Amino acid sequence: MKKDALNIYDIAGIANVSIATVSRVVNGSDKVSESTRAKVLKVIEDVGYTPNVFAQGLGLNTMHTVGILVPTLDDHYMSTAVDCLEKELKRYGYDCILSCSGFELSGKQSKCEMLLSKHIDTLILVGSTYAGNGIDTFATDYIREAAKKVPVFIVNGNVSGDNIYASVCDDESVVNDVTAGLIGRGRRNILFLTDSHSYSSNKKKKGYEEAVEGAGLTANVVYVENDIHAVKKSLADLKDRPDGIIAANDNIAVGAVKYAVSAGLSIPDDIEIVGYNNSILAISSTPEISSIDNHTPEICHDTVERIMHNLNDDGYRLSNKLMISCNLIQRETTK
Amino acid sequence: MKKDALNIYDIAGIANVSIATVSRVVNGSDKVSESTRAKVLKVIEDVGYTPNVFAQGLGLNTMHTVGILVPTLDDHYMSTAVDCLEKELKRYGYDCILSCSGFELSGKQSKCEMLLSKHIDTLILVGSTYAGNGIDTFATDYIREAAKKVPVFIVNGNVSGDNIYASVCDDESVVNDVTAGLIGRGRRNILFLTDSHSYSSNKKKKGYEEAVEGAGLTANVVYVENDIHAVKKSLADLKDRPDGIIAANDNIAVGAVKYAVSAGLSIPDDIEIVGYNNSILAISSTPEISSIDNHTPEICHDTVERIMHNLNDDGYRLSNKLMISCNLIQRETTK
Repeated sequence: MKKDALNIYDIAGIANVSIATVSRVVNGSDKVSESTRAKVLKVIEDVGYTPNVFAQGLGLNTMHTVGILVPTLDDHYMSTAVDCLEKELKRYGYDCILSCSGFELSGKQSKCEMLLSKHIDTLILVGSTYAGNGIDTFATDYIREAAKKVPVFIVNGNVSGDNIYASVCDDESVVNDVTAGLIGRGRRNILFLTDSHSYSSNKKKKGYEEAVEGAGLTANVVYVENDIHAVKKSLADLKDRPDGIIAANDNIAVGAVKYAVSAGLSIPDDIEIVGYNNSILAISSTPEISSIDNHTPEICHDTVERIMHNLNDDGYRLSNKLMISCNLIQRETTK
Repeated sequence: MKKDALNIYDIAGIANVSIATVSRVVNGSDKVSESTRAKVLKVIEDVGYTPNVFAQGLGLNTMHTVGILVPTLDDHYMSTAVDCLEKELKRYGYDCILSCSGFELSGKQSKCEMLLSKHIDTLILVGSTYAGNGIDTFATDYIREAAKKVPVFIVNGNVSGDNIYASVCDDESVVNDVTAGLIGRGRRNILFLTDSHSYSSNKKKKGYEEAVEGAGLTANVVYVENDIHAVKKSLADLKDRPDGIIAANDNIAVGAVKYAVSAGLSIPDDIEIVGYNNSILAISSTPEISSIDNHTPEICHDTVERIMHNLNDDGYRLSNKLMISCNLIQRETTK
């Protein structure tokens, strides 16, 4: 092992403790148990580690830097969430290093490793794509590996494991309520449109299915491309005309509105349409789209507050999963 | 001067050369002129600098990291541009550190300094807000200061100075052409709507004014809030009904469409509307908005190619200003 290359992160990894703990041991803090202190000191002695003045000068022990991984910024929900997280972290004097991973497992893994190599204090994963489909655990193993090095916070997705903290929207419950509302207003052929098998999409789908099947109706889930004109075409190609649509995002809802307008349907009399994310797309549409607000600013605020409790080790006990309630913002496409 | 804190960036600063040059001198490369080598070696001797093995292990001599400064990610043009830049940089194995500065000078200055402190190889500023208003040079002095440390590339804005490279859209020319087209189709009361006094907005305004005044008509520039409903209200409050609108961005154009629809105007018969940025908002609107495409992916691609030429010092001669042509994407709001 090359001594030159060893740093506090290596020591933490070998001793299987956090860098904060190594830092406390090195700096003689009394907030470390005797057994942990002994373990860390033994590793330091074994590998011949010397806390590096140059490295300390660079502030390597705490970089005040949070890594943010996002599948893409070419999506309004994602870019808004990153914008919120960045602003909240800035308030605490933290910078962020952002990387885009795409939606494939290989990209997620490699970009996760890249961010970890940048000596970040915490990793934030934005979007339910990081939670996989909730079934195949191998798809989230890299997150549990990452969590051995730094705390991992997931915005809008849930992955189980030590040192992993999730904030999730109550997608299932709100979609169940909204669907029940449509049924209560006499809608009998309600579609659920989605482009994804993500954790979040599956929760929405479940909420929809429970409401529809609970009312003795048939669930009709249609997988579409996340493209306005492709959605419009998919709906025009359907045999049975829907009288209600729940879309997994506002982009898809815009396509549904365009379908309804071109089919000569009156909105919301002939058909009601519900979007998701309450984005500017919902307002750009004519008629303006009623959309489920998943409270991105609040979820980002809460995530950063939890990160600060965690980094400051202030004794605040973090739950591993925080549930945020969503609600429908009523506009012109629902009654 | 504390020796511990000295690093290759300090040496480069004192010797007034790039870090690449210091690195070449330290590593004995023959790609450095004798006079430069002598100057760098003198600084190294004077300050007692020793290339730090630990720092080299961390790859501090070249971080393969580019800093990106953007006013906000809560804007479709900005988030798309950052997404493009990130993907292009990734192809070359470069990571990026992103920060959001807001639109105020103080935020731009402090976040610029923060990114420079992160030992970036190059700084990219995204958006014409960084070019100030093109008149007050003090508003861009911090960029010239930054350019003494690393090369600065500006996406869609022009600032003059050594080591500053700009890519700008030919906003003036395309708006001139599009306005002339409206006049040619008989429009006589064309408004230019903008929310900004930025370099880019001023160029668009100039192109509009030249076309309108060249045709013997009166220019009518209306400053609006960058909010769909605020734009709609501002237009409804006008005394004279416009028959043509050029909007400085698609968000404003969506507001203009909503105004026209609510005023019972037929689009494009009674009024033609032109957006800017060719974003998803233009497609979300009904009718879909004809929008000027400023070729964000191309400008980002070209910027990263120029950065790589610069970092690799490959002898390719960069012009300080690259002009990209824009064009109108015809949809339903123009004839």
